Amino acid sequence: MAFTEQYDVAVVGAGHAGCEAAMAAARMGLKTALITMNMDLIAQMSCNPAVGGVAKGHLVREVDALGGIMGEVADAVGIQFRLLNTSRGPAVWSPRAQCDKAQYRVKMREVLEGQPGLHIRQAEVVDLVLDEGPGTRDQGPEGREQGTGNREQEGKGQGVGSREQGVEERGRRQVVGLRLRDGRQLMAGATIITTGTFLNGLIHCGEERYPAGRSGEPASVLLGEALRRLGLRTCRLKTGTPPRLDGRTIKWHMFEEQPGDADPTPFSFRTKKIVQPQISCHIAFTTPETLRLIRENVHRSAMYSGQIEGVGPRYCPSIEDKIVKFPDKTQHQFFLEPEGLNTHEVYINGMSTSLPMEVQWRMVHSIPGLDEAELLRPGYAIEYDSVDATELDRSLQVKSMEGLYLAGQINGTSGYEEAACQGIMAGINAALWVKGEAPFTMDRTEGYTGILIDDLISKGTNEPYRMFTSRAEFRLHLRIDNADRRLTPYGRKLGLINDEAWAEYEQKQARMVALEKLLNIRKVDAEALNAADLGGLTAVAGLTWAQLLKRPEVTIEPVMRALAEDLRKEPVLAEFVDRHPDDAVARAAFRNEARAVETEIKFAGYLDQQKKSIEKLKAAEAVSIPEWLEYGAISGLSREMREKLERVRPQTIGQASRIPGVTPAALSLVHVSIRLQGARRAVDRVETA
Amino acid sequence: MAFTEQYDVAVVGAGHAGCEAAMAAARMGLKTALITMNMDLIAQMSCNPAVGGVAKGHLVREVDALGGIMGEVADAVGIQFRLLNTSRGPAVWSPRAQCDKAQYRVKMREVLEGQPGLHIRQAEVVDLVLDEGPGTRDQGPEGREQGTGNREQEGKGQGVGSREQGVEERGRRQVVGLRLRDGRQLMAGATIITTGTFLNGLIHCGEERYPAGRSGEPASVLLGEALRRLGLRTCRLKTGTPPRLDGRTIKWHMFEEQPGDADPTPFSFRTKKIVQPQISCHIAFTTPETLRLIRENVHRSAMYSGQIEGVGPRYCPSIEDKIVKFPDKTQHQFFLEPEGLNTHEVYINGMSTSLPMEVQWRMVHSIPGLDEAELLRPGYAIEYDSVDATELDRSLQVKSMEGLYLAGQINGTSGYEEAACQGIMAGINAALWVKGEAPFTMDRTEGYTGILIDDLISKGTNEPYRMFTSRAEFRLHLRIDNADRRLTPYGRKLGLINDEAWAEYEQKQARMVALEKLLNIRKVDAEALNAADLGGLTAVAGLTWAQLLKRPEVTIEPVMRALAEDLRKEPVLAEFVDRHPDDAVARAAFRNEARAVETEIKFAGYLDQQKKSIEKLKAAEAVSIPEWLEYGAISGLSREMREKLERVRPQTIGQASRIPGVTPAALSLVHVSIRLQGARRAVDRVETA
Repeated sequence: MAFTEQYDVAVVGAGHAGCEAAMAAARMGLKTALITMNMDLIAQMSCNPAVGGVAKGHLVREVDALGGIMGEVADAVGIQFRLLNTSRGPAVWSPRAQCDKAQYRVKMREVLEGQPGLHIRQAEVVDLVLDEGPGTRDQGPEGREQGTGNREQEGKGQGVGSREQGVEERGRRQVVGLRLRDGRQLMAGATIITTGTFLNGLIHCGEERYPAGRSGEPASVLLGEALRRLGLRTCRLKTGTPPRLDGRTIKWHMFEEQPGDADPTPFSFRTKKIVQPQISCHIAFTTPETLRLIRENVHRSAMYSGQIEGVGPRYCPSIEDKIVKFPDKTQHQFFLEPEGLNTHEVYINGMSTSLPMEVQWRMVHSIPGLDEAELLRPGYAIEYDSVDATELDRSLQVKSMEGLYLAGQINGTSGYEEAACQGIMAGINAALWVKGEAPFTMDRTEGYTGILIDDLISKGTNEPYRMFTSRAEFRLHLRIDNADRRLTPYGRKLGLINDEAWAEYEQKQARMVALEKLLNIRKVDAEALNAADLGGLTAVAGLTWAQLLKRPEVTIEPVMRALAEDLRKEPVLAEFVDRHPDDAVARAAFRNEARAVETEIKFAGYLDQQKKSIEKLKAAEAVSIPEWLEYGAISGLSREMREKLERVRPQTIGQASRIPGVTPAALSLVHVSIRLQGARRAVDRVETA
Repeated sequence: MAFTEQYDVAVVGAGHAGCEAAMAAARMGLKTALITMNMDLIAQMSCNPAVGGVAKGHLVREVDALGGIMGEVADAVGIQFRLLNTSRGPAVWSPRAQCDKAQYRVKMREVLEGQPGLHIRQAEVVDLVLDEGPGTRDQGPEGREQGTGNREQEGKGQGVGSREQGVEERGRRQVVGLRLRDGRQLMAGATIITTGTFLNGLIHCGEERYPAGRSGEPASVLLGEALRRLGLRTCRLKTGTPPRLDGRTIKWHMFEEQPGDADPTPFSFRTKKIVQPQISCHIAFTTPETLRLIRENVHRSAMYSGQIEGVGPRYCPSIEDKIVKFPDKTQHQFFLEPEGLNTHEVYINGMSTSLPMEVQWRMVHSIPGLDEAELLRPGYAIEYDSVDATELDRSLQVKSMEGLYLAGQINGTSGYEEAACQGIMAGINAALWVKGEAPFTMDRTEGYTGILIDDLISKGTNEPYRMFTSRAEFRLHLRIDNADRRLTPYGRKLGLINDEAWAEYEQKQARMVALEKLLNIRKVDAEALNAADLGGLTAVAGLTWAQLLKRPEVTIEPVMRALAEDLRKEPVLAEFVDRHPDDAVARAAFRNEARAVETEIKFAGYLDQQKKSIEKLKAAEAVSIPEWLEYGAISGLSREMREKLERVRPQTIGQASRIPGVTPAALSLVHVSIRLQGARRAVDRVETA
């Protein structure tokens, strides 16, 4: 007799996706279980001890703007902050932070434990509980009686029956709970699976291989079998991690130091202070000997010996990959990154490998300054099961299985940030589903999160998917400085942004609007300006400050100095003038707000143009493709097009347009057929009535 | 081709035994590897988040006095300190501390990483590398050549050949290294195995069971097979852990608060300050409903359903055990113990169980104040392999296998402290063995550590062995206050006590000697004393203070107050008078020093008597039984006696006397036979020469 607990939402896995998912669902008022195999390894940074980076930093900002937690936790335990790409345009500026790995776990758990309605449970999930009665849940009491005497029925999600969705005709199966290894059943209105690399995980280190979830942790084999039984299309992916070094055995003086920013830029819009002592990373390079060693031994890498079936991350390749794929490059850069304040463990960013330990050892030693370095943990590759994300709809729900959501690496992505943004979206949507409300989706014009999900569900992926700014059509719109303007109103509406954070958000928006207005109204006093020697800033009379700012060479900082007196007069703007000498975070925040206003002014023309393109795209997105559309009945549609469309079953014409190989002609046919088939169905219904 | 690393000492497992073992060997100047399956779970407190307790606190003090680390780490992360048993005699006073579980791991790792010569390696050990040439290592170069071409030979421990031991005639096999799952070989002069519950671990939770090392961690199956192949006698033991609760769901006001001591007593003689904020535990009791529930479901406990073969810890029983074994008891006490400062997780000390989760849930809820408590982790039982400790000699080396040491739960003990004291002893002895020096052993009169090892190697155990003060014959000698006097000189000689700690030790001894001397010389000024109203302390003239202290009702505190003026005059004693108002640790330390002097004076007669008994025991210990003794050739020795002696092969007459069932008559026969057989061997040698 199984013992049953009842939740609204169950999240399987407490990595970067699972933590956000559980937090979002709980903050939306739902009774949420977060199930982990080991409570002591919640939010484990299984690879590099850092959050953010180009495009990834954007994702963290978006998670934060929606009301997620990754940014706040990283800020609390960050030991080196860098705003990347500041030499380039503001669209690609992106924050990154080294974190104290052990304290990241402690802090994340503290945040999760502090959330009412979030119930952490240590357990291994071994199976899903399905409700397979055809259309059972929509057939009312009679349908339910089919399941009488079956305990699995008892846990059927509350609130579920009240929701209206066009699913009654498809008779989809529903996940109503989970079976745990300790004999419990855990019933839930919705279930989110975030298994990372654990699903049938297989570690490779040179010629050796063995099942594991991460090094030293068991794989999730029984749940893997359960998911396979669902009949979802799966894919075998691979990722890897570099060896870790003992920092005491590194000759630090032989490497170029890379300090953090003097004024750290936090991830979270809500962070007031960076509290941890700050450290430096160091930059290193391979030598000809390193390359020779790898070339000579590449056949022994699990990657190249044919031992690994899975496909690895193209943009986070192993060192042997880099050397094979770029044979002309004479050296490769990497970074020596400390894993925390209380440990000497050092992560070698850029040296992921599945070469045998012997070769790893010699490879590390081939670098001057690491010639006596000791390896604390081996690098290794890990293969794991992912699900073809075209099995999902835009809310991250499995199309063929109601109540089941997938997020994170299981959907074919790579990276903590890519996992986290899916996690919060899945958490929000699982909660909305249980509440009987319409899903929350983000389109490509609103955030990188929207781009990631649209890419995945439209195209799937046959290699681990990583975010880049180049994936965005309108990237000047998707900046880190306006992530809150783009997304915080959604977060507020969903219940993820509390009153205090919302009040701060509104103040900030008012401040930025006031500044933009001032710059647009106030005329430049050319004489005073020329006399003031503000970094070579000169101007002719009659221009507004905003007009001056449109010049590429003019930046906001001298303008703010020139306007100091005016700013001081307006209470809402006075804060920009106060230099906050003792508060680096406030300094960075106000600097970034002013820069955001500068960007909006400087690129106004371009941004307007983009906005028009965005409207066009949104129009295509607005044409939804009904679930009943039969591609087989569209005459003129080639077999190839039909197969592609059948596989993804896009929800909108916009989504259909992004399926690789789908032609504009095919789109037109689909567009027309929606009306045609719709009319025919209406006729049929009248005739059968 | 295996990649080989070379160490002097390799320690397998980084729990409480492994950490001490590795630290001791490294501090003794040896290149030491500490191999763990997961560096993030080093020093995991797998059961209760506390160190010490009656007799266990003694062990921690002894580890500390020898130069170990458990005491210092517990002091650094302790969040509630209590000196137990202060209402009873000083022999049984014992320190205990709740610890912050997550920070215990961080701190221990920091200490280990700070130790030169200690090399942490994340890896799974899958096999032992043996040198099986008969007597190879003692037959000089010719013998060694037998192994030529065998890579396993390359790692043979340095320094080993120089040691003289009577092993040449037994042709023992030798462990010379380890094989790791990542394909490496790790060669070592000596190997210490500390596998805790991981060796073929099998978790039971109600009717469910599955292999694991601890919940959420893989079992060590391949190493288990390797150890079985050695042919050592093994035993299947069992231990258990209670469910963990979410502290936010406990109605704390319904339980009696148990605060810590105002003046915390640290474990370590070297700790100067308790730095963590201090918290309270709470006391709770079962109800009749709890008992009824357990009785009704006891057949479903893995313990009672016949599912578990292993024997559990008699003195740390599961709640179902307690209820079955003490049917007349109407309630059982337990403690609600917070697991840390940053978590709400609460440990239920006293509620270890392998009942099904459903029953665990109802059992917890049957207690007023826990009626809404949520279970974060299930309680469970775990079965694991242990080795019959009679396979070991007093240095914890496996008798039939040179270079192989075992420590901790694998030897049949229970508890972190029991593991730690074996760990330091195994670490010391492995280091001495590699150096070619005689082993360091501690006898029963010197410490609880000596008692534990003597009990284990003489009698073995068929249930998890836990330390009690009642196991000591001379417990008034084995106090927490004199652990340093008993053991620190050994630690210093072994190289485990640094100059600073040694200087402090010597100052303390000088101070105590001076105080004792003063008390023995100075006469009581009865009139002044009677006038001074020192807590009712009165005396007649002519007595020394020491004579006064012999009275049961007189304690040291009022005496110290009466002597304040005299103490101030002697620089070495002045510190006793200073009340250290801002330093609780110093207050406790000086109070305890004065109490130790009081104990020595008060119980001088009894202590002297014990000393005589100790001498007698030591005389028996001094009669060593040579390895060549043939029990089969002792006429008059019964078959039963012979079997018992053959099994243990005791190293001294003293050890033989403690083998259960061995009679004084048998001991006399053995004693005599040593000389008889020795003489016969001498004759044989002359004749064959």
